[in-house]
Amino acid sequence: MMYVISYDITNDKRRRKLTKYLESYGVRVQYSVFETELSREQLSILIRELKKRIDEKEDTIRIYPISKDARKSITTLGKDKGSYYKDDFLII
Amino acid sequence: MMYVISYDITNDKRRRKLTKYLESYGVRVQYSVFETELSREQLSILIRELKKRIDEKEDTIRIYPISKDARKSITTLGKDKGSYYKDDFLII
Repeated sequence: MMYVISYDITNDKRRRKLTKYLESYGVRVQYSVFETELSREQLSILIRELKKRIDEKEDTIRIYPISKDARKSITTLGKDKGSYYKDDFLII
Repeated sequence: MMYVISYDITNDKRRRKLTKYLESYGVRVQYSVFETELSREQLSILIRELKKRIDEKEDTIRIYPISKDARKSITTLGKDKGSYYKDDFLII
């Protein structure tokens, strides 16, 4: 399943670390948005790991599941920074 | 249908204006992410209006449709800045 992960991390160091971590899971399409392709097991592990990496009082992460049908209707306006589906990207 | 709108706008003034515009369509759940509930007609109008408000070479906006089923599985970690479904929010 495709998941869109967006985050607001107030602290620069924490945000850099989280961004680096998410790079192993998907493609950064915007400054604070990743597109990933995950199994349920991968999603559970990711959620557990993300929880360790944020300050629950300061930061926020949202994970949106995108269904197969919905995926076909994603709209991009302006510059396209690339997407999982255009790159040869390896999910680890 | 629910749509998640995320944006990277390089210019501060342009970003402020766009954020203000999007506030009439939904709820800002992160610094550059809105959650909206739109009909197809509203979506078409919104896309047309957003195109006028961005620099197509500099900025990027992504609009993700979220199906009814997917909506139930949205995950929030950390601070919850509020969501359309919790607020009494009027779609204009």
